[in-house]
Amino acid sequence: MATINENFLKLQAGYLFPEVGRRVREYQARNPTSKVISLGIGDVTQPLAPAIIEAMKKAVDEMSKEETFRGYDHGHVGYEFLREAIRENDFNARGVEIDVDEIFVSDGAKCDTANIQEIFGPDNTIAVTDPVYPVYVDTNVMAGRTGQADQNGQYDKIVYMPCTAENNFIPELPKSPVDIIYLCFPNNPTGAVATKEILNEWVNYARTNKAIILFDAAYEAFITDPRVPHSIYEIDGAKEVAIEFRSFSKTAGFTGVRCAFTIVPKQLKAYTNNGKAIEVNPVWHRRHCTKFNGVSYISQVGAAAVYSNEGKKQCRHIIDIYMTNAALICESLSRLGYKAYGGVNAPYIWIKTPDGLSSWEFFDKLLQKANLIGTPGSGFGPSGEGYFRLTAFAQPENVKEAMKRFAAV
Amino acid sequence: MATINENFLKLQAGYLFPEVGRRVREYQARNPTSKVISLGIGDVTQPLAPAIIEAMKKAVDEMSKEETFRGYDHGHVGYEFLREAIRENDFNARGVEIDVDEIFVSDGAKCDTANIQEIFGPDNTIAVTDPVYPVYVDTNVMAGRTGQADQNGQYDKIVYMPCTAENNFIPELPKSPVDIIYLCFPNNPTGAVATKEILNEWVNYARTNKAIILFDAAYEAFITDPRVPHSIYEIDGAKEVAIEFRSFSKTAGFTGVRCAFTIVPKQLKAYTNNGKAIEVNPVWHRRHCTKFNGVSYISQVGAAAVYSNEGKKQCRHIIDIYMTNAALICESLSRLGYKAYGGVNAPYIWIKTPDGLSSWEFFDKLLQKANLIGTPGSGFGPSGEGYFRLTAFAQPENVKEAMKRFAAV
Repeated sequence: MATINENFLKLQAGYLFPEVGRRVREYQARNPTSKVISLGIGDVTQPLAPAIIEAMKKAVDEMSKEETFRGYDHGHVGYEFLREAIRENDFNARGVEIDVDEIFVSDGAKCDTANIQEIFGPDNTIAVTDPVYPVYVDTNVMAGRTGQADQNGQYDKIVYMPCTAENNFIPELPKSPVDIIYLCFPNNPTGAVATKEILNEWVNYARTNKAIILFDAAYEAFITDPRVPHSIYEIDGAKEVAIEFRSFSKTAGFTGVRCAFTIVPKQLKAYTNNGKAIEVNPVWHRRHCTKFNGVSYISQVGAAAVYSNEGKKQCRHIIDIYMTNAALICESLSRLGYKAYGGVNAPYIWIKTPDGLSSWEFFDKLLQKANLIGTPGSGFGPSGEGYFRLTAFAQPENVKEAMKRFAAV
Repeated sequence: MATINENFLKLQAGYLFPEVGRRVREYQARNPTSKVISLGIGDVTQPLAPAIIEAMKKAVDEMSKEETFRGYDHGHVGYEFLREAIRENDFNARGVEIDVDEIFVSDGAKCDTANIQEIFGPDNTIAVTDPVYPVYVDTNVMAGRTGQADQNGQYDKIVYMPCTAENNFIPELPKSPVDIIYLCFPNNPTGAVATKEILNEWVNYARTNKAIILFDAAYEAFITDPRVPHSIYEIDGAKEVAIEFRSFSKTAGFTGVRCAFTIVPKQLKAYTNNGKAIEVNPVWHRRHCTKFNGVSYISQVGAAAVYSNEGKKQCRHIIDIYMTNAALICESLSRLGYKAYGGVNAPYIWIKTPDGLSSWEFFDKLLQKANLIGTPGSGFGPSGEGYFRLTAFAQPENVKEAMKRFAAV
């Protein structure tokens, strides 16, 4: 008798975005002429940079000729031309030495942050922030590292680290020992960033406790403050304790193209139950090569074009469009008396709901009075209750119109 | 203390292809002027069909304009235009009714056959053929469903089903109960296919034992005999017990483009330890959406073009090139007195090594006497000892030259 992985039965329904969609559809059915604008969208809207388009067309052309056709990316970990560009531009240029063998190109940071837990033992204690990107949690539920969920949707055995205005959305170091810590800076959903000092504390914690930090830096391209580190490896000793996830999705609009990468330093160790140190890099390499067959050649060529001179300028311009949106949202809402966080080094703006409204009450009000959509903060975890997420990814004209409507509410 | 998944430490080194590479490099270093031809290659060599190229260029163009730009494939399971084309052409046209919600588009059949085991419980007994595609086994090792490997590289707790000339490379039904059965037809590496009668026996076995068949049909496009089923769903009742894996990699030369799909029928059930039936389709859907973020839009558009009238003709023509290679290999080797299997409904030719040579002895002889590379059968499992795999994926001129050299040995 084939049995199911019963851990999947512990999962809560993917409630947040389906419920947002349901309420919006219901509203539009009742109000068919209303022009609803979404600031809830977590997807990019600007087209790809011309340098990327040009490079991908050339790559498609190469696939049409026997002499230049490319089959499997045989190493499975990404073409050297792309890994070299990553090494040079994302790390060396910031004073961080990374070896190309430490770079694993993949089809998405979501996949990588989801898959990484597989290489760790079943009994590790997992720590996540609250609010949190649900993928970190759900994949550990599937793997059996948790108990059942409580009425808040939080799972037994996971250590949740609340992030609210009271602690500037920076989690405190855990009081009980944890083994694997997911951190995301710039943060989705709060837009918070971590200074060198803060990351240094976490690296020290991990070194002291032989813990591992899974550092999601998918939004690093949105950092504007020169004091904020883009990579956790800018912190001394981080290579011994941290894996870093990067993505072209938001950096270069690759949500529909699919390319990302993960850094697993050679110094990083995990341990057998008997305390023997094991290098993590070859274990992830084995996992990656066994369960994955490389990224589309066309996508990899497109990703490499992000690092060309033209590509850099053009992608910067696109990020600036989003960050101009973010600035407009922050300014407009602050002027209206909202408490708005994030939006300076991140494409997310996290606002305190007014008048003590719950996240969902504010959602309904905004939809009905202003035909605007955002994302209820409570959907990211109980500490998100009373908060609301707006994103900077809409078209600028829609953001302007949305801010007028906010003012009118 | 972060612990490693110790199951990874049970894995045998990925020995086969690295060892082939090592011996070839060593030979070439000693014989720098020798022109070595590989018939060991499992990758396609023909460029993409013009209809696919044209469609992908158009898709790249769409990504350059705000009105037609595509971000996330929001359902994560593939665009409807592609899933409709799959349903219509791969299934309806063969009398099989499949719902689009049963089709999960992914970036590779390797990934899907690797990931599928996650949704099943840890205590399922796994059955695989011997010889076998190593991904089926290794991913179950990683998940902890096996013990240690023996001196043959076979893992405790896995049921291996020998496939040799004596049983026409068709495994016998297991004598001890098994829960999850990996079958691959047309087979890699033996090139064997299963008739309706054979698949019917397996479906009956699975129905009787509440087992699940994981049916890898990545090579179905190479079937030439009209009596051979292309899909396991051509067998009555298979939807209750089988998941099918398909790929554009060999069908349309997508090894560097990355697109595949998996069918999880709604009727398919697995069970809790208490015997409660659970629908597998929503569990796989949850896994797919949580750990995967969709296939490149450009790749999906390319895949849809495989089903256009032009695309069908052009892809057929490419398959014919490979199958002409296969026929030439089979004929030439038979004429030389080799016992050659497969190559009629599959791009793989599985030959018995002559004079009682071991697989590796024959490899060395062929390399040294004829500058030809193939793959030692023993690398796929102990029942592959005394066999040798050739593939039909080389350029036709190289295949012709290779056959001349075979004759000269």
